[in-house]
Amino acid sequence: MESQHILSVLQQIEDGTLDAQTAYEQLKISPFEDLGYAKVDHHRGIRQGVQEVIYGAGKTAEQLEGIIQSMLSRQATNILITRLSQENAAHLAERFSITYDKLSRIGIIERREKLTASGTIVIATGGTSDIPIAEEAALTAEVLGNKVNRLYDVGVAGIHRLLSHVEILSQATVIVAVAGMEGALASVIGGLCDCPVIAVPTSVGYGANFQGLSALLSMLNSCASGVSVVNIDNGFGAGYLASMINHIGGNER
Amino acid sequence: MESQHILSVLQQIEDGTLDAQTAYEQLKISPFEDLGYAKVDHHRGIRQGVQEVIYGAGKTAEQLEGIIQSMLSRQATNILITRLSQENAAHLAERFSITYDKLSRIGIIERREKLTASGTIVIATGGTSDIPIAEEAALTAEVLGNKVNRLYDVGVAGIHRLLSHVEILSQATVIVAVAGMEGALASVIGGLCDCPVIAVPTSVGYGANFQGLSALLSMLNSCASGVSVVNIDNGFGAGYLASMINHIGGNER
Amino acid sequence: MESQHILSVLQQIEDGTLDAQTAYEQLKISPFEDLGYAKVDHHRGIRQGVQEVIYGAGKTAEQLEGIIQSMLSRQATNILITRLSQENAAHLAERFSITYDKLSRIGIIERREKLTASGTIVIATGGTSDIPIAEEAALTAEVLGNKVNRLYDVGVAGIHRLLSHVEILSQATVIVAVAGMEGALASVIGGLCDCPVIAVPTSVGYGANFQGLSALLSMLNSCASGVSVVNIDNGFGAGYLASMINHIGGNER
Amino acid sequence: MESQHILSVLQQIEDGTLDAQTAYEQLKISPFEDLGYAKVDHHRGIRQGVQEVIYGAGKTAEQLEGIIQSMLSRQATNILITRLSQENAAHLAERFSITYDKLSRIGIIERREKLTASGTIVIATGGTSDIPIAEEAALTAEVLGNKVNRLYDVGVAGIHRLLSHVEILSQATVIVAVAGMEGALASVIGGLCDCPVIAVPTSVGYGANFQGLSALLSMLNSCASGVSVVNIDNGFGAGYLASMINHIGGNER
Amino acid sequence: MESQHILSVLQQIEDGTLDAQTAYEQLKISPFEDLGYAKVDHHRGIRQGVQEVIYGAGKTAEQLEGIIQSMLSRQATNILITRLSQENAAHLAERFSITYDKLSRIGIIERREKLTASGTIVIATGGTSDIPIAEEAALTAEVLGNKVNRLYDVGVAGIHRLLSHVEILSQATVIVAVAGMEGALASVIGGLCDCPVIAVPTSVGYGANFQGLSALLSMLNSCASGVSVVNIDNGFGAGYLASMINHIGGNER
Amino acid sequence: MESQHILSVLQQIEDGTLDAQTAYEQLKISPFEDLGYAKVDHHRGIRQGVQEVIYGAGKTAEQLEGIIQSMLSRQATNILITRLSQENAAHLAERFSITYDKLSRIGIIERREKLTASGTIVIATGGTSDIPIAEEAALTAEVLGNKVNRLYDVGVAGIHRLLSHVEILSQATVIVAVAGMEGALASVIGGLCDCPVIAVPTSVGYGANFQGLSALLSMLNSCASGVSVVNIDNGFGAGYLASMINHIGGNER
Amino acid sequence: MESQHILSVLQQIEDGTLDAQTAYEQLKISPFEDLGYAKVDHHRGIRQGVQEVIYGAGKTAEQLEGIIQSMLSRQATNILITRLSQENAAHLAERFSITYDKLSRIGIIERREKLTASGTIVIATGGTSDIPIAEEAALTAEVLGNKVNRLYDVGVAGIHRLLSHVEILSQATVIVAVAGMEGALASVIGGLCDCPVIAVPTSVGYGANFQGLSALLSMLNSCASGVSVVNIDNGFGAGYLASMINHIGGNER
Amino acid sequence: MESQHILSVLQQIEDGTLDAQTAYEQLKISPFEDLGYAKVDHHRGIRQGVQEVIYGAGKTAEQLEGIIQSMLSRQATNILITRLSQENAAHLAERFSITYDKLSRIGIIERREKLTASGTIVIATGGTSDIPIAEEAALTAEVLGNKVNRLYDVGVAGIHRLLSHVEILSQATVIVAVAGMEGALASVIGGLCDCPVIAVPTSVGYGANFQGLSALLSMLNSCASGVSVVNIDNGFGAGYLASMINHIGGNER
Repeated sequence: MESQHILSVLQQIEDGTLDAQTAYEQLKISPFEDLGYAKVDHHRGIRQGVQEVIYGAGKTAEQLEGIIQSMLSRQATNILITRLSQENAAHLAERFSITYDKLSRIGIIERREKLTASGTIVIATGGTSDIPIAEEAALTAEVLGNKVNRLYDVGVAGIHRLLSHVEILSQATVIVAVAGMEGALASVIGGLCDCPVIAVPTSVGYGANFQGLSALLSMLNSCASGVSVVNIDNGFGAGYLASMINHIGGNER
Repeated sequence: MESQHILSVLQQIEDGTLDAQTAYEQLKISPFEDLGYAKVDHHRGIRQGVQEVIYGAGKTAEQLEGIIQSMLSRQATNILITRLSQENAAHLAERFSITYDKLSRIGIIERREKLTASGTIVIATGGTSDIPIAEEAALTAEVLGNKVNRLYDVGVAGIHRLLSHVEILSQATVIVAVAGMEGALASVIGGLCDCPVIAVPTSVGYGANFQGLSALLSMLNSCASGVSVVNIDNGFGAGYLASMINHIGGNER
Repeated sequence: MESQHILSVLQQIEDGTLDAQTAYEQLKISPFEDLGYAKVDHHRGIRQGVQEVIYGAGKTAEQLEGIIQSMLSRQATNILITRLSQENAAHLAERFSITYDKLSRIGIIERREKLTASGTIVIATGGTSDIPIAEEAALTAEVLGNKVNRLYDVGVAGIHRLLSHVEILSQATVIVAVAGMEGALASVIGGLCDCPVIAVPTSVGYGANFQGLSALLSMLNSCASGVSVVNIDNGFGAGYLASMINHIGGNER
Repeated sequence: MESQHILSVLQQIEDGTLDAQTAYEQLKISPFEDLGYAKVDHHRGIRQGVQEVIYGAGKTAEQLEGIIQSMLSRQATNILITRLSQENAAHLAERFSITYDKLSRIGIIERREKLTASGTIVIATGGTSDIPIAEEAALTAEVLGNKVNRLYDVGVAGIHRLLSHVEILSQATVIVAVAGMEGALASVIGGLCDCPVIAVPTSVGYGANFQGLSALLSMLNSCASGVSVVNIDNGFGAGYLASMINHIGGNER
Repeated sequence: MESQHILSVLQQIEDGTLDAQTAYEQLKISPFEDLGYAKVDHHRGIRQGVQEVIYGAGKTAEQLEGIIQSMLSRQATNILITRLSQENAAHLAERFSITYDKLSRIGIIERREKLTASGTIVIATGGTSDIPIAEEAALTAEVLGNKVNRLYDVGVAGIHRLLSHVEILSQATVIVAVAGMEGALASVIGGLCDCPVIAVPTSVGYGANFQGLSALLSMLNSCASGVSVVNIDNGFGAGYLASMINHIGGNER
Repeated sequence: MESQHILSVLQQIEDGTLDAQTAYEQLKISPFEDLGYAKVDHHRGIRQGVQEVIYGAGKTAEQLEGIIQSMLSRQATNILITRLSQENAAHLAERFSITYDKLSRIGIIERREKLTASGTIVIATGGTSDIPIAEEAALTAEVLGNKVNRLYDVGVAGIHRLLSHVEILSQATVIVAVAGMEGALASVIGGLCDCPVIAVPTSVGYGANFQGLSALLSMLNSCASGVSVVNIDNGFGAGYLASMINHIGGNER
Repeated sequence: MESQHILSVLQQIEDGTLDAQTAYEQLKISPFEDLGYAKVDHHRGIRQGVQEVIYGAGKTAEQLEGIIQSMLSRQATNILITRLSQENAAHLAERFSITYDKLSRIGIIERREKLTASGTIVIATGGTSDIPIAEEAALTAEVLGNKVNRLYDVGVAGIHRLLSHVEILSQATVIVAVAGMEGALASVIGGLCDCPVIAVPTSVGYGANFQGLSALLSMLNSCASGVSVVNIDNGFGAGYLASMINHIGGNER
Repeated sequence: MESQHILSVLQQIEDGTLDAQTAYEQLKISPFEDLGYAKVDHHRGIRQGVQEVIYGAGKTAEQLEGIIQSMLSRQATNILITRLSQENAAHLAERFSITYDKLSRIGIIERREKLTASGTIVIATGGTSDIPIAEEAALTAEVLGNKVNRLYDVGVAGIHRLLSHVEILSQATVIVAVAGMEGALASVIGGLCDCPVIAVPTSVGYGANFQGLSALLSMLNSCASGVSVVNIDNGFGAGYLASMINHIGGNER
């Protein structure tokens, strides 16, 4: 997987600076720490260019504490915890320096924000109720070094609200379109702009929205080109991917 | 169900012009003809203001012929047959005066069109592939006495195509929005206009459109007010309802 | 979108009474107020003939307050808030003149009702448990200036209850049929009457009703003509559309 | 399972007229013949009061032939084969005395019909396209010794067609309601009558009927009491069950 | 709908003992009382042979009270209320003579049980957790005058438990099979017995049982003949239908 | 079903040491105790080689107590109760010697663990949140006499975490792969190893995981050979089956 | 992944018999041949103990030919091709020594069968129509060196057919239960036997079987322990897994 | 929407070089040609940086010809037609210079390929049967000016095939992962690489893959970051989006 590393280890054996058994052990060594209930990946910052992200749902306060402790022991910063309950956030706040956003339920440990990409990510929502998911995307993208432009409540039922912001859209490197109900926002934005659009269906709505299925199917069937979709309510995933794409466009100088 | 009729029959008994047994028989008499495999409803033209409509799918050429014969024997005109296969249309053409549209698979027996409503119905489609369903709606509405304005291939992926026709939309009494894939057309039109919008999801698309489910759910969850939905690919139902609403607005003079 | 407005602005430049830059700004000006979390649409009363409607679910009391404040500052009346929780209603009641219906969870700010349409809307339910949704429709229609006739608990399992009210149905301009479980009410009414029927599936029932899916599919597949469907439990949408259709039929004098 | 038989066998051992090993063999003997690809059940006529029924779909002409041969060798009559393709019917017709109904795809070998139940089964359909399934039910019931009354094309969209036949319905011991699309027929009949109603959803329809799902859910959620449901398009099952219930009511003398 | 009644009214007019207008009013009079939120059906006891049954879910204590009051004013007994919450039951207990079963949530007002059918209904469950639904069926059947035999926890995973009770099954006039999870109980019983089997899928289980869908589909696809299905968890419907079928078999003397 | 037993009983009659009636009674005697609400199966330990397992969900504390009492009266040990609520566990703890694991909600009465199989079961999870289900499997397998090796949080998103444990996997007799979200763990393990893999989809995740459906479908469609699937969140079933397979491989000496 | 291999390569470098670059190449070398459209895995026979299996659906005759050629060039035998169309089988028959079974659509190239496991696999089907899938399982298991016992048409609707073969079932090491419709066979067998049961849902049936969904859900929810499930119609997967489990039980001597 | 354009038109009126009426007409003029059945968008090449793409499914040969003619009249090149049937391709080949790929059903009119982006797109498939969809993506990306690297048949069931190509993956700017069945390829690649991964679920598979649903859900629930999803079988959409992202990374010099 890491051919450079393998080759260098092999080189050392050939050089006689390493014996076979030790080399084998080294090759086997995993770049993560095993806490039993979790295997914390310390190389991810290097391998994927970003810090480890912790999915907070279904983890106890103690498990979260252990994972964060392990990461901090290696000088990690900007540790993102998604879907962090208020109770667990309070527990962590007593132990670590944490920024917690109630709306999006995102916690950030040792926040050290720094703009690293030159482009702009626009995050648009269909309605007011989609904002928590949009904020999950926005905060994620900001922590990862992006400039974010919020454009909330511009759903297609009042399309003039969207059309009057076409200039903001046209200056984006990548757009995150967050919408529930019929999820048409992604298609309309996709038809107006020529940059990648990451569509986030939300579970906002009722009845035949089937907890986000309507928006999900709508976005998957978008007849606009350049639109791709992440899981229902997955603001984090959209923010992360937007950051990835935005960094392709070059770094902030 | 028909209180005037019942009351007048009772009056006749009181007047002694009708005996109880005959009255009972008259009250029982049904306004339809029983062909065994079908009960043809001759009073529908009166009761619902339109001719009987024949759902052509799943009926044999012989059954269709029998039903039409029965209706013609009562001087019916403008008999609409939906989902009529080309084979059955050919069979009927040898016996009756029929207009058949291959695209929408609509047949009309003894067509006698006459404009009876003063308003206009606009029928819009998202794409070219939605046209067969749109034509089913358009022909139905025309047979029922409406002026129809067609606006095809104005889907939201190129929203300027739709916006450049806003004047046509704004002059409609009622709009039929026909779209497959993500079905966003209905929401966008619903947001632009202040007249009833009848949304027709189509099975156009592939994959996660699940034979029209994506457009159906999208339209049902429309955040625009004034939008209601008919069955997937139900152009006839939309045309019929549009005509009903259009006739509320007054008659053509 | 508003050709008269555009043309008049252009005329003014030609006349020299307006310079290009100012004209551009005017053309760009959006008729809504941006509260950050919401873009309040002040022109909707004009463009769509009705006041702005606020979808109350998923909005905080503070957001609702802000939106209403913004609307009242422009002399709005009859502000409808749907799916308004009792807590938020109480919060608003301390600040505004509000009418709140617990059953349907509808709130109306500065209620100024006035009959504006000449026809009648009949709202029928299959059972007693469908009444909250029916009331959402009824109150919406009344606020929008319609005469409403309620016909509750006339489901098809005891069809004589419905048949004994055929005269009420036959005098309607448009009928709203609200039913859960098998949702057959819409088909039966659609077969009896010759006016538009707006079907509202409700989530009333259990087991294989799958939260309203059974009634929804039933209504979408209605073999009666003139029936269209709104989202599950969407009483507001039905009341709004019914009002739209009823106003086509002419105004109350 | 057959305690009388077991007890009598044991009695014989005690009496010394049977040795243990033979008794064990007798107890073990299964009342069916093993053809390898099928185990033909010769005791079913006795155990369940009816002949073996062969599900024709997915069986080759040769397999069908073998099964029938095995049954005829034991003097079986009224052998019912459901979902029998025209090809296989032709193959069997060369070898056996068969009655074949193209519409319902039912074949009957050695038909010997005899009325054995005193009540009447009414079989009603919503439309003309439901007739094939209704005939599967009707023919099954007739072969099993029942008087059947057919009432076709009485769907709820023209409810007066159904209401004018209430007397026929009220004289039934059990009613089979066959309908596709919204399947409301079962509920309406269930509300009118006080006998068991067996609902058969059909796959007739298109779009959001999802191959019979709409009628199925509708019928399962019927708010009328006394309604139960069989599989989509399962005319045979309904006819068989109707016969079972009808025979509870006493035999034809 | 009630031809005898109509004919006799007509006779009276002819006889001069009734004038047309009064006759019309009489024909129009509905046999139910209108409480606004409910239309109580007093003729149902006559028309369908059983008392009105009240679906308790979604009705307030006050609505229930009103409906019962209306029924008692006509000397109704054995008023069944299904899905009655413990709170509402307590409310009613202060006002009426009620029997309430916590497990099945059934309440019976003015219970006057009397055996009226000669046959026996067997009610079997797959497991212990299915008992609440089974009791809903059992109590319903008992109130309606049937002898009920309970056979609980005889699911197919330990099929010898079922087989050892074959004699009980074989003496039933009709069997109600209540099961969740894979719902195989109905098929196995259907294969063993030659009487009607009413299958009740329950929502017992987890994961891929999808709230009863697995048992529902399983039962609908039963390869045993004589099996029909009611809604998930619909113990009442099964008990009611079982009673209907059991009464066909003749009355208790 | 138990031919040896039947034959020996018959032999005794032939020998005259047993009369027919008594023999019949003996043949009929079921090896379970009937508690009314439950039929406790005492022969299961013999017939299936393991103790009775009690599904704790939907049973009251009293029912559980009764079932356990009945089993203990026959000297049962290692009585497993799955999905046991904390409340019921507390109730049982006052009466019996119980081991209770809060995470997996498994209770064990009279735990007497003894290693009986020679192979090893590896239980792997995709993430930390899958551990409760994994523990249900692990504890079940341990009670049934197996050596269990836990490998938690080795999901495919960081595949090097899994690859670094390939040796542990390769020494397993059977592997249980527990994963939610996209459930890819089963396929990857199935591709790496040549032993049976039991896949347990979990409901861990959100949005389009639809309560475990995504993992379930993913695992059912695994393109790796040797993978089979149990119900969503069914850790017990996986542990039980793994034990069964592991014991085929021979006993621990 | 193959630690022995890696360690030995490293040893050689240390020994000086291999230079680092070559070692790296060797470590990198994949044990498969790249045909562009397919990567044929030649080490699978070693790694997983069985030959490569080719999924025949969606591959052209030419692609199949290329893959087989590649495998034969390495002396492969017993090459299994599943879902092989008759046309492609004919194409291959002209070039290779192939055994083709029309029913199960399995082809075997260079068949060299040899019994390698000592236990027996029983393959049971619910009906005659399930035989093609059962044969896919049976042939797969036989090619892989197992003794297979077929038990066809023993579905639960005639449970005595199954019960009379309990001895065959009780001698199995592992059982494959193949059933469509309600899929209850797996549960019943699971309750009778104490060996692993691999359930194969089939798409046999119609209507609410939804192409195998009913049997699939039924089997996943089996209340019998020891049952796991493979994909709908996946006879191959079941046969392969059964063989894996059967070989755990020791080799044929 | 195009503020520069609007402003310049306004400037001209102010300058007196344009009168208001003409300006209004200019502002209204749509940049597309109306063919009745299609509105061809000639400005898309400018607005979105790529040529119009024609969705070939559901369009007649004549409609396709008309649309292409209209585009060629404006010197369009590289006109992409997706889902083009072989018949229609033949029809077009007689009139235009077309490249047609049978496998992916893509046609390209006036192909003029030119590398315009500096990065590389890797397109990977799980199996051989996924290649048609992968080729749709690959050809689309190539036409749009990208370097494409194909990596076919590297599914997770033989994960060493994928791991041996990690270097190819690590050099990609963006990866398209095409897979059916369990769709795990996207997650595994997403976990290995730190570039955007566009997941394309395919309908390859059978049974519980439900025409691509299993892969779709799997990919949407990917626990790897950086993965987004397009519609089932939507190779074109993935290729188009990949090109968009790749061009952010800078142009080929």
